[in-house]
Amino acid sequence: MTGQPVAPQQCEITFRVRYAETDPMGVLHHSRYFVFFEMGRTELLRQAGFRYRDLEIRGVLFVVFKAACQYRQPAHYDDELRLVTRIDRVTRSRIDHSYELVRVEDGRLICTAQTTLACVGRDGQVIAIPEDVAPHLP
Amino acid sequence: MTGQPVAPQQCEITFRVRYAETDPMGVLHHSRYFVFFEMGRTELLRQAGFRYRDLEIRGVLFVVFKAACQYRQPAHYDDELRLVTRIDRVTRSRIDHSYELVRVEDGRLICTAQTTLACVGRDGQVIAIPEDVAPHLP
Amino acid sequence: MTGQPVAPQQCEITFRVRYAETDPMGVLHHSRYFVFFEMGRTELLRQAGFRYRDLEIRGVLFVVFKAACQYRQPAHYDDELRLVTRIDRVTRSRIDHSYELVRVEDGRLICTAQTTLACVGRDGQVIAIPEDVAPHLP
Amino acid sequence: MTGQPVAPQQCEITFRVRYAETDPMGVLHHSRYFVFFEMGRTELLRQAGFRYRDLEIRGVLFVVFKAACQYRQPAHYDDELRLVTRIDRVTRSRIDHSYELVRVEDGRLICTAQTTLACVGRDGQVIAIPEDVAPHLP
Repeated sequence: MTGQPVAPQQCEITFRVRYAETDPMGVLHHSRYFVFFEMGRTELLRQAGFRYRDLEIRGVLFVVFKAACQYRQPAHYDDELRLVTRIDRVTRSRIDHSYELVRVEDGRLICTAQTTLACVGRDGQVIAIPEDVAPHLP
Repeated sequence: MTGQPVAPQQCEITFRVRYAETDPMGVLHHSRYFVFFEMGRTELLRQAGFRYRDLEIRGVLFVVFKAACQYRQPAHYDDELRLVTRIDRVTRSRIDHSYELVRVEDGRLICTAQTTLACVGRDGQVIAIPEDVAPHLP
Repeated sequence: MTGQPVAPQQCEITFRVRYAETDPMGVLHHSRYFVFFEMGRTELLRQAGFRYRDLEIRGVLFVVFKAACQYRQPAHYDDELRLVTRIDRVTRSRIDHSYELVRVEDGRLICTAQTTLACVGRDGQVIAIPEDVAPHLP
Repeated sequence: MTGQPVAPQQCEITFRVRYAETDPMGVLHHSRYFVFFEMGRTELLRQAGFRYRDLEIRGVLFVVFKAACQYRQPAHYDDELRLVTRIDRVTRSRIDHSYELVRVEDGRLICTAQTTLACVGRDGQVIAIPEDVAPHLP
Protein backbone atom coordinates (compact mmCIF):
# COMPACT_ATOMS: atom_id res chain seq x y z
CA MET A 1 0.00 0.00 0.00
CA THR A 2 3.04 2.12 0.24
CA GLY A 3 4.27 3.69 -2.91
CA GLN A 4 1.52 6.22 -3.27
CA PRO A 5 2.81 9.00 -5.37
CA VAL A 6 4.36 11.56 -3.09
CA ALA A 7 4.42 14.06 -5.88
CA PRO A 8 2.04 15.03 -8.63
CA GLN A 9 2.63 12.79 -11.60
CA GLN A 10 1.40 15.41 -13.99
CA CYS A 11 0.69 19.08 -14.15
CA GLU A 12 -1.26 21.42 -16.36
CA ILE A 13 -0.33 24.91 -17.41
CA THR A 14 -2.24 27.27 -19.68
CA PHE A 15 -0.82 30.17 -21.64
CA ARG A 16 -1.46 32.19 -24.78
CA VAL A 17 0.53 31.97 -28.00
CA ARG A 18 2.60 35.15 -28.38
CA TYR A 19 2.79 37.05 -31.61
CA ALA A 20 6.56 36.71 -31.74
CA GLU A 21 6.16 32.92 -31.53
CA THR A 22 4.18 32.64 -34.75
CA ASP A 23 5.57 32.50 -38.25
CA PRO A 24 4.56 33.82 -41.70
CA MET A 25 2.03 31.01 -42.00
CA GLY A 26 0.43 32.61 -38.94
CA VAL A 27 1.07 29.53 -36.85
CA LEU A 28 3.13 28.73 -33.80
CA HIS A 29 6.61 27.86 -35.04
CA HIS A 30 7.45 24.19 -34.52
CA SER A 31 10.62 25.03 -32.55
CA ARG A 32 8.66 26.94 -29.90
CA TYR A 33 6.82 23.92 -28.59
CA PHE A 34 9.99 22.76 -26.88
CA VAL A 35 10.07 25.96 -24.85
CA PHE A 36 6.55 25.16 -23.61
CA PHE A 37 7.56 21.64 -22.66
CA GLU A 38 10.37 23.12 -20.58
CA MET A 39 7.86 25.40 -18.85
CA GLY A 40 5.76 22.32 -18.10
CA ARG A 41 8.72 20.54 -16.54
CA THR A 42 9.55 23.59 -14.42
CA GLU A 43 6.01 23.67 -13.02
CA LEU A 44 5.91 19.93 -12.40
CA LEU A 45 9.13 20.24 -10.39
CA ARG A 46 7.77 23.26 -8.52
CA GLN A 47 4.68 21.25 -7.52
CA ALA A 48 7.03 18.65 -6.09
CA GLY A 49 8.60 21.35 -3.96
CA PHE A 50 11.71 22.07 -5.97
CA ARG A 51 12.79 25.01 -8.00
CA TYR A 52 14.99 24.19 -10.96
CA ARG A 53 17.06 27.30 -10.32
CA ASP A 54 17.89 26.03 -6.84
CA LEU A 55 18.99 22.69 -8.24
CA GLU A 56 21.25 24.51 -10.68
CA ILE A 57 22.86 26.40 -7.82
CA ARG A 58 23.59 23.01 -6.21
CA GLY A 59 25.21 21.89 -9.45
CA VAL A 60 22.39 19.54 -10.42
CA LEU A 61 21.48 20.15 -14.04
CA PHE A 62 19.01 18.37 -16.27
CA VAL A 63 19.91 18.39 -19.94
CA VAL A 64 17.70 17.29 -22.81
CA PHE A 65 19.08 14.10 -24.25
CA LYS A 66 16.31 13.24 -26.70
CA ALA A 67 13.20 15.08 -27.86
CA ALA A 68 10.43 14.24 -30.29
CA CYS A 69 7.19 15.95 -31.23
CA GLN A 70 4.23 14.95 -33.39
CA TYR A 71 2.34 17.97 -34.68
CA ARG A 72 -1.40 17.40 -35.22
CA GLN A 73 -3.05 20.80 -35.64
CA PRO A 74 -1.55 24.24 -36.02
CA ALA A 75 -1.89 26.71 -33.13
CA HIS A 76 -2.34 30.41 -33.86
CA TYR A 77 -1.45 33.72 -32.29
CA ASP A 78 -3.45 34.44 -29.14
CA ASP A 79 -4.79 30.87 -28.90
CA GLU A 80 -5.06 29.77 -25.31
CA LEU A 81 -3.32 26.44 -24.95
CA ARG A 82 -3.25 23.89 -22.16
CA LEU A 83 -0.20 21.70 -21.73
CA VAL A 84 -0.27 18.50 -19.71
CA THR A 85 3.19 17.31 -18.65
CA ARG A 86 3.67 13.82 -17.28
CA ILE A 87 6.57 11.84 -15.92
CA ASP A 88 6.60 8.47 -17.63
CA ARG A 89 9.71 6.88 -16.22
CA VAL A 90 12.56 7.67 -13.86
CA THR A 91 15.82 5.77 -13.79
CA ARG A 92 19.01 6.42 -11.84
CA SER A 93 19.99 9.41 -13.94
CA ARG A 94 17.24 9.93 -16.50
CA ILE A 95 13.66 11.15 -16.61
CA ASP A 96 11.20 10.53 -19.44
CA HIS A 97 8.39 13.04 -19.82
CA SER A 98 5.46 13.06 -22.20
CA TYR A 99 3.31 16.00 -23.22
CA GLU A 100 -0.11 16.75 -24.65
CA LEU A 101 -0.91 20.22 -25.89
CA VAL A 102 -4.58 21.12 -26.43
CA ARG A 103 -6.34 24.29 -27.56
CA VAL A 104 -8.65 25.39 -24.76
CA GLU A 105 -11.34 26.87 -27.00
CA ASP A 106 -12.19 23.75 -29.00
CA GLY A 107 -10.34 21.01 -27.14
CA ARG A 108 -8.39 19.99 -30.22
CA LEU A 109 -5.11 18.18 -29.77
CA ILE A 110 -2.28 20.36 -31.06
CA CYS A 111 0.61 17.98 -30.48
CA THR A 112 2.03 15.12 -28.48
CA ALA A 113 5.68 14.94 -27.52
CA GLN A 114 8.28 13.05 -25.49
CA THR A 115 11.62 14.01 -23.99
CA THR A 116 14.38 12.25 -22.09
CA LEU A 117 16.45 14.31 -19.68
CA ALA A 118 19.79 13.30 -18.23
CA CYS A 119 20.98 14.53 -14.85
CA VAL A 120 24.48 15.98 -15.12
CA GLY A 121 26.92 17.86 -12.93
CA ARG A 122 28.52 21.15 -13.73
CA ASP A 123 31.14 19.38 -15.82
CA GLY A 124 28.45 17.82 -18.00
CA GLN A 125 29.11 14.28 -16.74
CA VAL A 126 26.05 12.17 -16.02
CA ILE A 127 25.33 11.81 -12.30
CA ALA A 128 22.64 10.08 -10.26
CA ILE A 129 19.53 12.12 -9.54
CA PRO A 130 20.08 13.38 -5.95
CA GLU A 131 18.45 11.34 -3.19
CA ASP A 132 16.24 14.17 -1.98
CA VAL A 133 14.88 14.82 -5.45
CA ALA A 134 14.38 11.29 -6.76
CA PRO A 135 11.52 10.24 -4.42
CA HIS A 136 9.50 13.18 -5.65
CA LEU A 137 9.77 12.01 -9.20
CA PRO A 138 7.23 9.21 -9.19
CA MET B 1 20.80 8.66 -68.36
CA THR B 2 18.57 7.10 -65.85
CA GLY B 3 18.66 7.78 -62.22
CA GLN B 4 21.23 10.52 -61.94
CA PRO B 5 20.35 12.76 -59.13
CA VAL B 6 18.83 15.86 -60.67
CA ALA B 7 19.22 17.70 -57.43
CA PRO B 8 21.71 17.72 -54.61
CA GLN B 9 20.73 15.09 -52.11
CA GLN B 10 22.40 16.93 -49.29
CA CYS B 11 23.80 20.28 -48.43
CA GLU B 12 26.11 21.75 -45.83
CA ILE B 13 25.85 25.06 -44.09
CA THR B 14 28.13 26.51 -41.45
CA PHE B 15 27.24 29.18 -38.93
CA ARG B 16 28.19 30.39 -35.47
CA VAL B 17 26.13 29.93 -32.32
CA ARG B 18 24.71 33.29 -31.28
CA TYR B 19 24.83 34.53 -27.72
CA ALA B 20 21.05 34.88 -27.61
CA GLU B 21 20.74 31.21 -28.57
CA THR B 22 22.55 29.94 -25.50
CA ASP B 23 21.11 29.40 -22.05
CA PRO B 24 22.26 29.77 -18.45
CA MET B 25 24.21 26.54 -18.75
CA GLY B 26 26.16 28.37 -21.46
CA VAL B 27 24.98 25.95 -24.11
CA LEU B 28 22.88 26.17 -27.21
CA HIS B 29 19.26 25.75 -26.10
CA HIS B 30 17.74 22.49 -27.31
CA SER B 31 14.83 24.27 -29.03
CA ARG B 32 17.17 26.26 -31.28
CA TYR B 33 18.43 23.25 -33.19
CA PHE B 34 15.13 23.08 -35.04
CA VAL B 35 15.70 26.58 -36.41
CA PHE B 36 19.02 25.39 -37.83
CA PHE B 37 17.38 22.37 -39.45
CA GLU B 38 14.94 24.74 -41.15
CA MET B 39 17.86 26.79 -42.43
CA GLY B 40 19.36 23.58 -43.83
CA ARG B 41 16.13 22.72 -45.66
CA THR B 42 15.93 26.24 -47.09
CA GLU B 43 19.45 25.93 -48.51
CA LEU B 44 18.85 22.43 -49.87
CA LEU B 45 15.80 23.72 -51.70
CA ARG B 46 17.73 26.74 -52.97
CA GLN B 47 20.40 24.43 -54.41
CA ALA B 48 17.61 22.65 -56.27
CA GLY B 49 16.61 25.96 -57.81
CA PHE B 50 13.67 26.84 -55.63
CA ARG B 51 13.12 29.48 -53.04
CA TYR B 52 10.77 28.52 -50.28
CA ARG B 53 9.35 32.03 -50.23
CA ASP B 54 8.35 31.65 -53.88
CA LEU B 55 6.61 28.36 -53.15
CA GLU B 56 4.69 30.05 -50.35
CA ILE B 57 3.51 32.74 -52.75
CA ARG B 58 2.19 29.93 -54.99
CA GLY B 59 0.33 28.51 -52.01
CA VAL B 60 2.65 25.55 -51.56
CA LEU B 61 3.59 25.24 -47.91
CA PHE B 62 5.63 22.63 -46.13
CA VAL B 63 4.70 22.09 -42.51
CA VAL B 64 6.60 20.06 -39.95
CA PHE B 65 4.62 16.96 -39.14
CA LYS B 66 7.14 15.14 -36.96
CA ALA B 67 10.51 16.09 -35.52
CA ALA B 68 13.02 14.29 -33.36
CA CYS B 69 16.50 15.14 -32.15
CA GLN B 70 19.18 13.19 -30.30
CA TYR B 71 21.59 15.50 -28.48
CA ARG B 72 25.14 14.14 -28.12
CA GLN B 73 27.38 17.01 -27.09
CA PRO B 74 26.56 20.54 -26.00
CA ALA B 75 27.42 23.40 -28.35
CA HIS B 76 28.57 26.73 -26.93
CA TYR B 77 28.34 30.40 -27.79
CA ASP B 78 30.50 31.32 -30.77
CA ASP B 79 31.15 27.68 -31.75
CA GLU B 80 31.27 27.29 -35.50
CA LEU B 81 28.92 24.47 -36.46
CA ARG B 82 28.44 22.58 -39.71
CA LEU B 83 25.03 21.15 -40.49
CA VAL B 84 24.54 18.44 -43.11
CA THR B 85 20.93 18.18 -44.29
CA ARG B 86 19.82 15.16 -46.32
CA ILE B 87 16.61 14.08 -47.99
CA ASP B 88 15.95 10.50 -46.97
CA ARG B 89 12.61 9.81 -48.61
CA VAL B 90 9.99 11.58 -50.70
CA THR B 91 6.43 10.38 -51.08
CA ARG B 92 3.45 11.99 -52.81
CA SER B 93 3.02 14.65 -50.13
CA ARG B 94 5.78 14.13 -47.57
CA ILE B 95 9.52 14.60 -47.30
CA ASP B 96 11.76 12.99 -44.71
CA HIS B 97 14.99 14.80 -43.90
CA SER B 98 17.83 13.81 -41.62
CA TYR B 99 20.48 16.04 -40.09
CA GLU B 100 23.94 15.84 -38.61
CA LEU B 101 25.38 18.77 -36.72
CA VAL B 102 29.13 18.85 -36.09
CA ARG B 103 31.44 21.33 -34.38
CA VAL B 104 33.97 22.51 -36.96
CA GLU B 105 36.86 22.96 -34.52
CA ASP B 106 37.06 19.42 -33.19
CA GLY B 107 34.76 17.49 -35.52
CA ARG B 108 32.60 16.29 -32.65
CA LEU B 109 29.05 15.26 -33.37
CA ILE B 110 26.64 17.65 -31.64
CA CYS B 111 23.36 16.00 -32.64
CA THR B 112 21.48 13.91 -35.13
CA ALA B 113 17.88 14.61 -36.05
CA GLN B 114 15.02 13.68 -38.33
CA THR B 115 11.94 15.53 -39.55
CA THR B 116 8.92 14.73 -41.71
CA LEU B 117 7.32 17.58 -43.63
CA ALA B 118 3.87 17.50 -45.19
CA CYS B 119 3.00 19.58 -48.24
CA VAL B 120 -0.17 21.59 -47.61
CA GLY B 121 -2.17 24.28 -49.35
CA ARG B 122 -3.14 27.60 -47.87
CA ASP B 123 -6.08 25.97 -46.12
CA GLY B 124 -3.77 23.54 -44.34
CA GLN B 125 -5.06 20.51 -46.27
CA VAL B 126 -2.44 18.03 -47.43
CA ILE B 127 -1.73 18.29 -51.18
CA ALA B 128 0.61 16.51 -53.56
CA ILE B 129 4.06 18.02 -53.91
CA PRO B 130 3.81 20.03 -57.18
CA GLU B 131 5.09 18.32 -60.32
CA ASP B 132 7.80 20.85 -61.01
CA VAL B 133 9.20 20.55 -57.50
CA ALA B 134 8.98 16.81 -56.90
CA PRO B 135 11.62 15.71 -59.46
CA HIS B 136 14.14 17.94 -57.76
CA LEU B 137 13.61 16.15 -54.47
CA PRO B 138 15.58 12.97 -55.07
CA MET C 1 -17.96 64.55 -16.50
CA THR C 2 -16.25 64.94 -19.78
CA GLY C 3 -13.08 63.22 -20.50
CA GLN C 4 -13.57 59.95 -18.69
CA PRO C 5 -11.37 57.36 -20.21
CA VAL C 6 -13.50 55.19 -22.47
CA ALA C 7 -10.83 52.56 -22.37
CA PRO C 8 -8.30 51.39 -19.88
CA GLN C 9 -5.30 53.63 -20.15
CA GLN C 10 -3.01 50.99 -18.81
CA CYS C 11 -2.91 47.31 -18.07
CA GLU C 12 -0.83 44.96 -16.00
CA ILE C 13 0.28 41.48 -16.84
CA THR C 14 2.41 39.12 -14.78
CA PHE C 15 4.44 36.21 -16.08
CA ARG C 16 7.53 34.18 -15.27
CA VAL C 17 10.85 34.39 -17.07
CA ARG C 18 11.34 31.21 -19.10
CA TYR C 19 14.59 29.29 -19.08
CA ALA C 20 14.94 29.63 -22.85
CA GLU C 21 14.71 33.43 -22.46
CA THR C 22 17.82 33.68 -20.31
CA ASP C 23 21.39 33.80 -21.50
CA PRO C 24 24.77 32.48 -20.30
CA MET C 25 24.93 35.31 -17.76
CA GLY C 26 21.78 33.71 -16.33
CA VAL C 27 19.73 36.80 -17.09
CA LEU C 28 16.81 37.61 -19.32
CA HIS C 29 18.26 38.46 -22.73
CA HIS C 30 17.80 42.13 -23.62
CA SER C 31 16.01 41.29 -26.88
CA ARG C 32 13.25 39.39 -25.06
CA TYR C 33 11.85 42.43 -23.33
CA PHE C 34 10.33 43.58 -26.60
CA VAL C 35 8.29 40.38 -26.78
CA PHE C 36 6.85 41.19 -23.34
CA PHE C 37 5.97 44.73 -24.41
CA GLU C 38 4.05 43.24 -27.34
CA MET C 39 2.18 40.97 -24.92
CA GLY C 40 1.31 44.07 -22.89
CA ARG C 41 -0.08 45.84 -25.95
CA THR C 42 -2.14 42.79 -26.89
CA GLU C 43 -3.74 42.71 -23.44
CA LEU C 44 -4.36 46.45 -23.38
CA LEU C 45 -6.17 46.16 -26.70
CA ARG C 46 -8.13 43.14 -25.45
CA GLN C 47 -9.31 45.16 -22.43
CA ALA C 48 -10.58 47.77 -24.88
CA GLY C 49 -12.64 45.08 -26.58
CA PHE C 50 -10.44 44.33 -29.56
CA ARG C 51 -8.36 41.37 -30.49
CA TYR C 52 -5.28 42.18 -32.50
CA ARG C 53 -5.80 39.06 -34.60
CA ASP C 54 -9.22 40.35 -35.65
CA LEU C 55 -7.74 43.69 -36.67
CA GLU C 56 -5.17 41.86 -38.77
CA ILE C 57 -7.93 39.98 -40.54
CA ARG C 58 -9.50 43.37 -41.39
CA GLY C 59 -6.17 44.49 -42.82
CA VAL C 60 -5.35 46.82 -39.93
CA LEU C 61 -1.79 46.22 -38.82
CA PHE C 62 0.29 47.99 -36.22
CA VAL C 63 4.01 47.95 -36.90
CA VAL C 64 6.75 49.05 -34.54
CA PHE C 65 8.29 52.23 -35.84
CA LYS C 66 10.56 53.09 -32.93
CA ALA C 67 11.53 51.25 -29.76
CA ALA C 68 13.80 52.10 -26.85
CA CYS C 69 14.55 50.39 -23.56
CA GLN C 70 16.53 51.38 -20.48
CA TYR C 71 17.69 48.36 -18.50
CA ARG C 72 18.02 48.93 -14.75
CA GLN C 73 18.32 45.55 -13.07
CA PRO C 74 18.78 42.09 -14.54
CA ALA C 75 15.88 39.63 -14.35
CA HIS C 76 16.55 35.93 -13.85
CA TYR C 77 15.03 32.62 -14.82
CA ASP C 78 11.75 31.92 -13.01
CA ASP C 79 11.45 35.49 -11.70
CA GLU C 80 7.85 36.59 -11.64
CA LEU C 81 7.60 39.94 -13.42
CA ARG C 82 4.83 42.50 -13.63
CA LEU C 83 4.58 44.67 -16.72
CA VAL C 84 2.58 47.89 -16.78
CA THR C 85 1.75 49.07 -20.30
CA ARG C 86 0.42 52.58 -20.86
CA ILE C 87 -0.77 54.54 -23.85
CA ASP C 88 0.97 57.90 -23.77
CA ARG C 89 -0.26 59.51 -26.97
CA VAL C 90 -2.44 58.72 -29.96
CA THR C 91 -2.31 60.61 -33.22
CA ARG C 92 -4.07 59.96 -36.51
CA SER C 93 -1.93 56.96 -37.36
CA ARG C 94 0.46 56.43 -34.47
CA ILE C 95 0.36 55.22 -30.89
CA ASP C 96 3.03 55.83 -28.26
CA HIS C 97 3.22 53.34 -25.42
CA SER C 98 5.44 53.30 -22.36
CA TYR C 99 6.30 50.37 -20.15
CA GLU C 100 7.53 49.60 -16.67
CA LEU C 101 8.72 46.14 -15.77
CA VAL C 102 9.02 45.24 -12.09
CA ARG C 103 10.04 42.07 -10.25
CA VAL C 104 7.11 40.98 -8.10
CA GLU C 105 9.19 39.50 -5.29
CA ASP C 106 11.13 42.61 -4.33
CA GLY C 107 9.40 45.36 -6.30
CA ARG C 108 12.61 46.36 -8.05
CA LEU C 109 12.36 48.16 -11.35
CA ILE C 110 13.79 45.99 -14.11
CA CYS C 111 13.39 48.36 -17.04
CA THR C 112 11.48 51.24 -18.56
CA ALA C 113 10.73 51.41 -22.27
CA GLN C 114 8.88 53.29 -24.98
CA THR C 115 7.58 52.34 -28.40
CA THR C 116 5.85 54.11 -31.27
CA LEU C 117 3.56 52.04 -33.47
CA ALA C 118 2.32 53.06 -36.90
CA CYS C 119 -1.00 51.85 -38.29
CA VAL C 120 -0.53 50.37 -41.76
CA GLY C 121 -2.58 48.50 -44.32
CA ARG C 122 -1.68 45.19 -45.87
CA ASP C 123 0.56 46.95 -48.36
CA GLY C 124 2.58 48.51 -45.54
CA GLN C 125 1.38 52.05 -46.28
CA VAL C 126 0.49 54.19 -43.28
CA ILE C 127 -3.27 54.55 -42.78
CA ALA C 128 -5.46 56.31 -40.22
CA ILE C 129 -6.35 54.25 -37.15
CA PRO C 130 -9.91 53.01 -37.90
CA GLU C 131 -12.76 55.06 -36.42
CA ASP C 132 -14.11 52.25 -34.29
CA VAL C 133 -10.73 51.59 -32.74
CA ALA C 134 -9.42 55.11 -32.17
CA PRO C 135 -11.90 56.18 -29.45
CA HIS C 136 -10.83 53.23 -27.36
CA LEU C 137 -7.26 54.40 -27.40
CA PRO C 138 -7.38 57.21 -24.86
CA MET D 1 51.92 57.85 -34.50
CA THR D 2 49.01 60.11 -34.36
CA GLY D 3 45.49 59.04 -34.43
CA GLN D 4 45.71 55.85 -36.43
CA PRO D 5 42.98 53.57 -35.45
CA VAL D 6 44.50 50.74 -33.48
CA ALA D 7 41.42 48.69 -34.06
CA PRO D 8 38.73 48.49 -36.68
CA GLN D 9 36.18 51.15 -35.90
CA GLN D 10 33.45 49.32 -37.70
CA CYS D 11 32.66 45.94 -39.13
CA GLU D 12 30.20 44.49 -41.58
CA ILE D 13 28.42 41.17 -41.40
CA THR D 14 25.90 39.72 -43.84
CA PHE D 15 23.33 37.05 -43.09
CA ARG D 16 19.93 35.86 -44.23
CA VAL D 17 16.67 36.34 -42.37
CA ARG D 18 15.55 32.98 -40.99
CA TYR D 19 12.00 31.75 -41.31
CA ALA D 20 11.66 31.41 -37.54
CA GLU D 21 12.61 35.07 -37.18
CA THR D 22 9.65 36.36 -39.18
CA ASP D 23 6.14 36.93 -37.93
CA PRO D 24 2.60 36.55 -39.29
CA MET D 25 3.03 39.79 -41.24
CA GLY D 26 5.84 37.92 -43.01
CA VAL D 27 8.43 40.35 -41.71
CA LEU D 28 11.40 40.13 -39.42
CA HIS D 29 10.10 40.56 -35.87
CA HIS D 30 11.22 43.84 -34.30
CA SER D 31 12.75 42.04 -31.29
CA ARG D 32 15.13 40.05 -33.49
CA TYR D 33 17.13 43.04 -34.64
CA PHE D 34 18.77 43.22 -31.24
CA VAL D 35 20.16 39.72 -31.71
CA PHE D 36 21.79 40.90 -34.95
CA PHE D 37 23.32 43.91 -33.23
CA GLU D 38 24.85 41.55 -30.69
CA MET D 39 26.30 39.48 -33.54
CA GLY D 40 27.78 42.68 -34.94
CA ARG D 41 29.42 43.53 -31.63
CA THR D 42 30.84 40.01 -31.34
CA GLU D 43 32.49 40.31 -34.77
CA LEU D 44 33.80 43.81 -34.11
CA LEU D 45 35.45 42.53 -30.94
CA ARG D 46 36.82 39.49 -32.79
CA GLN D 47 38.43 41.80 -35.38
CA ALA D 48 40.11 43.61 -32.50
CA GLY D 49 41.59 40.30 -31.40
CA PHE D 50 39.23 39.41 -28.58
CA ARG D 51 36.60 36.79 -28.19
CA TYR D 52 33.71 37.75 -26.01
CA ARG D 53 33.58 34.24 -24.57
CA ASP D 54 37.16 34.62 -23.36
CA LEU D 55 36.33 37.91 -21.68
CA GLU D 56 33.42 36.23 -19.93
CA ILE D 57 35.75 33.55 -18.60
CA ARG D 58 37.91 36.35 -17.16
CA GLY D 59 34.84 37.78 -15.48
CA VAL D 60 34.54 40.75 -17.81
CA LEU D 61 30.95 41.06 -18.97
CA PHE D 62 29.29 43.67 -21.13
CA VAL D 63 25.63 44.20 -20.40
CA VAL D 64 23.19 46.23 -22.45
CA PHE D 65 22.27 49.34 -20.53
CA LYS D 66 20.26 51.17 -23.17
CA ALA D 67 19.01 50.21 -26.62
CA ALA D 68 17.01 52.03 -29.26
CA CYS D 69 16.00 51.16 -32.81
CA GLN D 70 14.32 53.10 -35.59
CA TYR D 71 12.62 50.79 -38.10
CA ARG D 72 12.49 52.13 -41.65
CA GLN D 73 11.57 49.28 -43.96
CA PRO D 74 10.42 45.76 -43.19
CA ALA D 75 12.81 42.88 -43.90
CA HIS D 76 11.45 39.56 -45.10
CA TYR D 77 12.28 35.88 -44.83
CA ASP D 78 15.39 34.93 -46.79
CA ASP D 79 16.40 38.56 -47.40
CA GLU D 80 20.16 38.94 -47.32
CA LEU D 81 21.00 41.76 -44.92
CA ARG D 82 24.21 43.65 -44.26
CA LEU D 83 24.81 45.09 -40.82
CA VAL D 84 27.39 47.79 -40.18
CA THR D 85 28.37 48.08 -36.50
CA ARG D 86 30.34 51.08 -35.30
CA ILE D 87 31.82 52.18 -32.00
CA ASP D 88 30.77 55.76 -31.39
CA ARG D 89 32.21 56.46 -27.98
CA VAL D 90 34.14 54.69 -25.24
CA THR D 91 34.33 55.90 -21.67
CA ARG D 92 35.87 54.29 -18.60
CA SER D 93 33.18 51.66 -18.30
CA ARG D 94 30.78 52.17 -21.21
CA ILE D 95 30.72 51.67 -24.96
CA ASP D 96 28.26 53.29 -27.35
CA HIS D 97 27.63 51.47 -30.62
CA SER D 98 25.53 52.46 -33.59
CA TYR D 99 24.15 50.23 -36.31
CA GLU D 100 22.87 50.41 -39.86
CA LEU D 101 21.06 47.48 -41.38
CA VAL D 102 20.65 47.42 -45.16
CA ARG D 103 19.08 44.91 -47.56
CA VAL D 104 21.79 43.72 -49.95
CA GLU D 105 19.52 43.25 -52.96
CA ASP D 106 18.22 46.81 -53.24
CA GLY D 107 20.43 48.72 -50.84
CA ARG D 108 17.44 49.96 -48.84
CA LEU D 109 17.96 51.01 -45.25
CA ILE D 110 16.08 48.64 -42.95
CA CYS D 111 16.89 50.28 -39.63
CA THR D 112 19.27 52.37 -37.59
CA ALA D 113 19.97 51.68 -33.95
CA GLN D 114 22.10 52.60 -30.96
CA THR D 115 23.12 50.77 -27.81
CA THR D 116 25.11 51.58 -24.70
CA LEU D 117 26.91 48.72 -22.97
CA ALA D 118 28.27 48.81 -19.45
CA CYS D 119 31.25 46.72 -18.38
CA VAL D 120 30.44 44.72 -15.26
CA GLY D 121 32.05 42.04 -13.15
CA ARG D 122 30.50 38.72 -12.26
CA ASP D 123 28.61 40.37 -9.42
CA GLY D 124 26.97 42.79 -11.83
CA GLN D 125 28.82 45.82 -10.45
CA VAL D 126 30.15 48.28 -13.02
CA ILE D 127 33.92 48.02 -13.50
CA ALA D 128 36.45 49.79 -15.71
CA ILE D 129 36.99 48.25 -19.13
CA PRO D 130 40.24 46.24 -18.69
CA GLU D 131 43.44 47.94 -19.80
CA ASP D 132 44.28 45.40 -22.47
CA VAL D 133 40.85 45.71 -24.07
CA ALA D 134 40.26 49.46 -23.89
CA PRO D 135 42.95 50.55 -26.40
CA HIS D 136 41.37 48.33 -29.02
CA LEU D 137 38.09 50.12 -28.65
CA PRO D 138 38.78 53.29 -30.56
